[in-house]
Order: sequence, then structure tokens, then C-alpha cells
Amino acid sequence: MPATDLVRELSRLLPAGHLLHDEESLGKYSHDDAEWAPFTAPLAVVLARSTAEVAAVVSYAADHGIHVVPRGAGTGLSGGANSVENCLIVSLELMTSILEIDTVEGLAVAQAGVINDDLRRAVAEHGLWYPPDPASSKISTIGGNAATNAGGICCVKYGVTRDYVRGMTVVLADGEIVHLGRRTAKGVTGYDLTSLLVGSEGTLGIITDVTVKLLPLAGREEQAIIGYFPTLRLAGDAVAAVTAEGIVPAALELIDSTCLRAVDDWMGLGLPEDVNVLLMAKIDEPGTTGADLASRLASIFHDAGGTNIEQATDPTEIERLFLARRMAYPSLERLGPVLTEDVCVPRHAVPEMLARIQASATEHDVVIANIAHAGDGNLHPLIIAPVGDDAAKARAKTAFDRIVDDCRDLGGTVTGEHGVGLLKLPGAAAELEPRVITMHQQIKNALDPHGILNPGKAFPAPEPAEELR
Amino acid sequence: MPATDLVRELSRLLPAGHLLHDEESLGKYSHDDAEWAPFTAPLAVVLARSTAEVAAVVSYAADHGIHVVPRGAGTGLSGGANSVENCLIVSLELMTSILEIDTVEGLAVAQAGVINDDLRRAVAEHGLWYPPDPASSKISTIGGNAATNAGGICCVKYGVTRDYVRGMTVVLADGEIVHLGRRTAKGVTGYDLTSLLVGSEGTLGIITDVTVKLLPLAGREEQAIIGYFPTLRLAGDAVAAVTAEGIVPAALELIDSTCLRAVDDWMGLGLPEDVNVLLMAKIDEPGTTGADLASRLASIFHDAGGTNIEQATDPTEIERLFLARRMAYPSLERLGPVLTEDVCVPRHAVPEMLARIQASATEHDVVIANIAHAGDGNLHPLIIAPVGDDAAKARAKTAFDRIVDDCRDLGGTVTGEHGVGLLKLPGAAAELEPRVITMHQQIKNALDPHGILNPGKAFPAPEPAEELR
Repeated sequence: MPATDLVRELSRLLPAGHLLHDEESLGKYSHDDAEWAPFTAPLAVVLARSTAEVAAVVSYAADHGIHVVPRGAGTGLSGGANSVENCLIVSLELMTSILEIDTVEGLAVAQAGVINDDLRRAVAEHGLWYPPDPASSKISTIGGNAATNAGGICCVKYGVTRDYVRGMTVVLADGEIVHLGRRTAKGVTGYDLTSLLVGSEGTLGIITDVTVKLLPLAGREEQAIIGYFPTLRLAGDAVAAVTAEGIVPAALELIDSTCLRAVDDWMGLGLPEDVNVLLMAKIDEPGTTGADLASRLASIFHDAGGTNIEQATDPTEIERLFLARRMAYPSLERLGPVLTEDVCVPRHAVPEMLARIQASATEHDVVIANIAHAGDGNLHPLIIAPVGDDAAKARAKTAFDRIVDDCRDLGGTVTGEHGVGLLKLPGAAAELEPRVITMHQQIKNALDPHGILNPGKAFPAPEPAEELR
Repeated sequence: MPATDLVRELSRLLPAGHLLHDEESLGKYSHDDAEWAPFTAPLAVVLARSTAEVAAVVSYAADHGIHVVPRGAGTGLSGGANSVENCLIVSLELMTSILEIDTVEGLAVAQAGVINDDLRRAVAEHGLWYPPDPASSKISTIGGNAATNAGGICCVKYGVTRDYVRGMTVVLADGEIVHLGRRTAKGVTGYDLTSLLVGSEGTLGIITDVTVKLLPLAGREEQAIIGYFPTLRLAGDAVAAVTAEGIVPAALELIDSTCLRAVDDWMGLGLPEDVNVLLMAKIDEPGTTGADLASRLASIFHDAGGTNIEQATDPTEIERLFLARRMAYPSLERLGPVLTEDVCVPRHAVPEMLARIQASATEHDVVIANIAHAGDGNLHPLIIAPVGDDAAKARAKTAFDRIVDDCRDLGGTVTGEHGVGLLKLPGAAAELEPRVITMHQQIKNALDPHGILNPGKAFPAPEPAEELR
């Protein structure tokens, strides 16, 4: 169908202003933050305001064989929201209502477009806490967080988005609306379709609202402990020692020297000389328990060779100690387009994996900086290529593939929290057994038999021989 | 095929002693602990010793159109392991090896037949803790726990089995073996098939081993606080006040007067007079934090009208305070066959639900005792009918259905932790939207197109009109 016909027909379904089809909008909505992944211009963009509107658009698209790519804030780093051939983008970013906060049950119901931080702020006013804290929490949506099963800094202790999603409203591939999950603390009625939808990247249904579990804010008292280390190996020893002592910190982040220098160059941190690696921990136990844990962490850092160890209990001071973490990504983006990796390895393999990443950087002559959720083995090598340097970009892509191979070699997974999207399709094909890939395709075919929703994302295509099963 | 041919052919696949077909075994393995649910004798029973044996048997069954009902220890309470027409029982109870304990990553790999408590004991020797603690932990298997997503007492704070299962080995409906999930702390490669299999009651695959996350044992110091209340309403107020203060106890259990009297009659508890309801809480924060929380809980109990409040920090004393909880079920079984309910309601609805249950007991002239995981709204009304009294049994079944209706009316779910099995098929049909039931059937058809695995369990059949989609 010509795009003009499509726009005319969709205009009948949608109020004015809910449909965009100007060049600028088509460009703006054609990809998420994974610019390295392929994309094309969509046919049009729908700014949905309700579940009913999403359903109407999907129903129309299904009837006309048009693909639908759902999208939250477009902060994804794997290309999961990148536009594909013959597609409508359905953006949920204007569905920003918090529909309910139930303080007795400890749950909230939020439309898909609610910004993560807005949800946190709203529930905090009721003494409640929504833990999942992706680095994008200021700009990413709760629907996108659910569709990608977003992680974050506190998940080393508090888990990921899936651990907090109890239920959801979903628009299926033919436009029908279903309600999955429950409101109660526990429940085992039928298959856990809620958990299946979380992390399915919009390929099985479009999540229009989520019901999330909340924890009490009370009883937590944050403290920060940081220390600098001369080598990755010694920082790795410190991380291993934290685990060995049975301490589960609320955050345990690592920043390597490339990253530290980039932040220092921009922000003037006044870094100590001869330091290469920064470890940043938080604990949140209250009272003397917390004080005891904080001093044990400081001792562990010291005994592992850490220097310039600092502790803070004041929120402003904690923010200062974690400044390098917060500014790492923007500091690196100043150096050129960043290709973000997201491998997750067993915790014991963190130092070895970081060493291999450095070897890849040298071998392929690219700059790689490292931010790592060291406490759970989730590493974010950030590969930087100068703008316009196609040779460097090609070398960066080679290094990216090498990192994925090394992660698999060490028993890791190719994506810890960013999702498969498009960028990790080859990695997922290496990680998943052929029959498991076929199981994905079988479930996809069962719930979206015409392949309407976000085709080609989230899992690799089965080998032809496997498809015949 | 005649059963004798089947036995002869299976005997070729299996070592001596792994196949049972005597009358007594066929009877013993024909049902789980849900004797009220229908069952029939199986064709034969396989005592599998390895994943390869399970695969060989399922492959044979698939080739010959024979159903396969997997089974752990048979402690289920919903009939999920009950034998169906034309079926082989595949018991995993002899697969009892703990294959690995990784203290750095904090995980264990256990074969499906490992008893829950045996896993706990083994990991405790390494300073680690496997939290999920169903009441059956002394006798139920980790594979059965995973297949039913078993809950327990500590899940009010620590979550259910699904929250701890990272990966698994599964035999699919055609006998092929797959490995799902991951070993790393985080991972989002593809759909969460592990979570889909957890709680699927053997209808999508047979779990032969599981990889579970462990927490450190260190840093926990258990304390118990109990109090008696004159009415359910006042006990309900105490539970609500605990939540309102932002306290998340490690256990918050309620036992009603019927249950208390049954335990007292048997065990001679020396119950105080004029008490009707017992609330039992545990907290596990260490040091002064724990001491403070314990005294706050005691104050809350007191302020809500609680009497005879006791606290304990010594393990033996804690066990004494929780004695009534542990002896509740066996005390009631002395009175006659027990039909165990498992509804879960929003926490605010606990007192109202308990009141309705008492009204049902009166109206239908049956004895109903209540054990409740009050902290998460998961109630276990235990309906007792004297042996041989068919009229009482019929009234009990009516009361059971009424409780399910009331739970739905209060926004609850028909099964909090026991699973749908056979007993909760009507309840699940009421709870799940028709299209959601169809989604279940579509996924079942996708992964088990010939309906080999545990047919008719876990979710209700779609309405005929829905099946045509």
C-alpha cells in the first residue's frame, strides 16, 4: 500500500496529532541508541495515548500485513526499537499516567510511557521503593524497561526488572487486548506469561501498562565506599573477597583507567597519580550493621591493595563518590560514537575477561573503556571510533565480535541487560542451542503467526533444517 | 498397545529395576497428595536415573502416542502428578546428585530428585543458603519445586522458587534434551524459557536438573516473635500495621482457632484461654537492627490487641514458638482426609477472606481450619471430612468451590503456590481471560504438538470458539 493511503486510513483511526509522517519524525523514530545496528525509515509513527489506540493500530497493521515496531523512549542499546522494512513505529512515550499506587499491597500500576525515575519519585512519596535502576532511569520508560528486562546498578542485591513485574496489559499481534499476571504477592495460575513477555522486546505483544511490586523505603541507609587500584587484577581480587565474605553490596561498580582518564580530562576529578581502576560500592543496611559492613568493605579494599579509600554516608557525598560512574558514558561520547558491549561472565572470570578486552583493544587498535557491574559480572566495554573513520569503525566491530567470543569462552552470556535486539543476534546464535532457537520460533509463531510484531529481533532465525521440526 | 508389550519394549531401554509394573507400584504412583483429584492407574512406572533415560523413555512414548506424567516426590497438593489415561509415570526421585556447588558465583546445580532440605544442608556447608522453603522441604524434590514454582514461609521476604532458578536441563516432548537459562547473575539472551518452564507442571518439558542461585548464609540472625489474638480481625490489623511500618518480616504466619485446638488436643501446647488466633513472625536482620525490629513487631502485636507475646533468639526456642505451625497439618490429618486450599488475596483482604471462609464452613457444615502465610495473603483453608462420610465430602467440595469464588471476588488468585494441577482447573478457567487460556494452549501446542506431556494439567482447555483462532 502506498504510504499516503496508509496515512489517510490511520488518520481515521487516530485523533489529530497522534500520527506523524513528516521526514524529520520518520528520521527521529527510525532507531534507538544503537546507531551501529541497521535501520530504515518507518512508514509512519503513531504516538499512542491509550491501550485502545495501540490495539486499533495493531489490528489495522495485522489486517494489512504491515509490521509494528513498539518503542518507549528509544534509549535501547541493541537496536530492539530500530525501524524495519514496511513498518509502523508505535511509540508509548505519551502514555505517562501512573494509574494506581497501592500502599497496603505494595504495588503500582503504570502506563508503559512512565519514566523510570518518575515512577520512583511518585512511589517514594508513599514511603515505597521501585528498585530497578538502569543507568537510563532519568529518560527510559517502564514499558521499555519491561520489554527489555532492564537491569541497573542495584541489581547485584535487588534483582532486575522481571523480579518486580507482577502483571501487565498487552496488545497481541492481532490487536486483541489481554491482561496477564496478578496483583497478589504470590500466584501460580497457569504459565508465567508475564515473565515470558518481560524481555521479549516487543516480539510477542506490546506492553501498554505494568503492575510492579514495590518495597518499603524504610530501613535502608545508603553508604558509599570507594577505592583506587593499581591493576585490574587487584580490583578483581577485591571483588572476589567481598563475595567470599558473604557480603551482598547494593552496588559494586568498576571503572577502568581509560574511562577514568576520560572523565578526569573533562570533569577535572583531581585523580590520584598511579591509579588505574576505581571500585565503587554501596551498602544499604541501617545502623551498626551498616557501619560494620562499610568498614569491612573498606578493609577488604585496603587489603587487596586499594588506596585513597573514601567512605560517605551523606547523600551529597555519596553522589560525589559516584560522580565518575555517572559521567563515564557522556565523557566517553565526547571522544566519538560509542559501541556499547554488555557481556556478563561468571564473577570469578571478571579479571580475565577485562584482561582479554584490553588485549582486543591493543590487537585491533581501538579505544575500549570499561564500566562494569563487577558485583554481578556484567561488563560494559565501550568501544570508541572517531567520527568519519570507517576503518576504525570496522576494527571496532571486529573487536566487538571478539569480546562476544571471549565471553562465551569464559562461560558467559552475550547480553547481561541490554537485550539481543539486532546487535546481539550473532552472539545469541552462538549461545543458544539450535533446538532452543527453534523453541523461540515456535513460541513466536504460536503468538504472532503472521510475524507482525518487531520481526527479526530478540532471537536469531533457526537454521533451515531446524525449522522443519 | 497391550501393557505387556510396552513393558517388554521399555525393559530393553532401561536397566533392571528402573521399570515398575507390579500392582502395588502402579497404585502407589497413581496420584500425588491431592487424593481428591481424579486419577487412574498408569501403564508402568519408570524410576529414571539420568537425563538420558528420561529422554529415551519420552522418545519411546512420543513414538507410540503414550502420555508421560513426570513426578518428583509426589507431595503435590493439586493433582499435577496424578496419573492419566494411557500414561507412563516418570519418577525423578532417584536422580539425587548435587552436581556442583560454585561458591564464587553463588550457585548450585542439582538433579531433579534432590530433596529440598538436602540441597539446603549441602550448600550450608559452604556458607550458602537456598531460601525457598515449602512446608514439604523435608520430603519434596527440587525438580518438583521448580515444576510447580513452590513457595513457602520465607517467600514474604525472599521470593519463590522461580526467583532462584537460573537454568535447567529439560527433556522436551519428543525426547530431545535442551539446556535453558544461564549460569551468570544476569542474562537476557532470548525469551525467558526458564521462567516459562518453572511452574508449567511438566506440561512443556521434564526438568531433569536445575541451576539455582544461592545467597550467603552470613549476615542473617533469626528471631521469632509470636502473639495470640482474640479475633481474626485484630490479627489482621496487626498484619496490616506491620506492612504500614515498612517492615518486611522473613515469615508472618497465622493459625486460626480450629487449627490451634487441633494441635493443642494432640500436642498439649498448654494454650492460653480465650485465644483464637496465633500470629508468628520471624525477622532475620542482625545485631541492633534485628533487636529493634523484633521489639517493634512485639509492640505492633501488643497495640493490635495481642496477648501472651513471646520472643526468641535461640534456635531451639524459635522452633518451639513455631511448633504449632509445623504440627498444624499432621494434627488436622488425624481428624480426617484434608482438602487443602491455596487461595492468595491482596494483603488488605486477608481478614475479610478469613471471615468468608468461616461463613462457608458454617453454611456448608464442614470443618475448616486455617493456616495462612498472612504476610503475603496466601491462605491455606484446610477442609476436613471424616473418612467414609460421602455427604461431608460433597459438602467439603462445595465449600472449596465457594472459597475459590470468594477469593476471585476479593481480587485474589486461585492458587498462590500449590499450582493448578487438576483441582484448580475450574478456578483457573474463571481467573484467566479466554484469550489468555488460548495463549496457553498455543504455547502447549507449539512445544508439545501431540500432547504427550502431562495432558490436561496446569491450565484449563480453551472454549471451542477460542480454539479456532
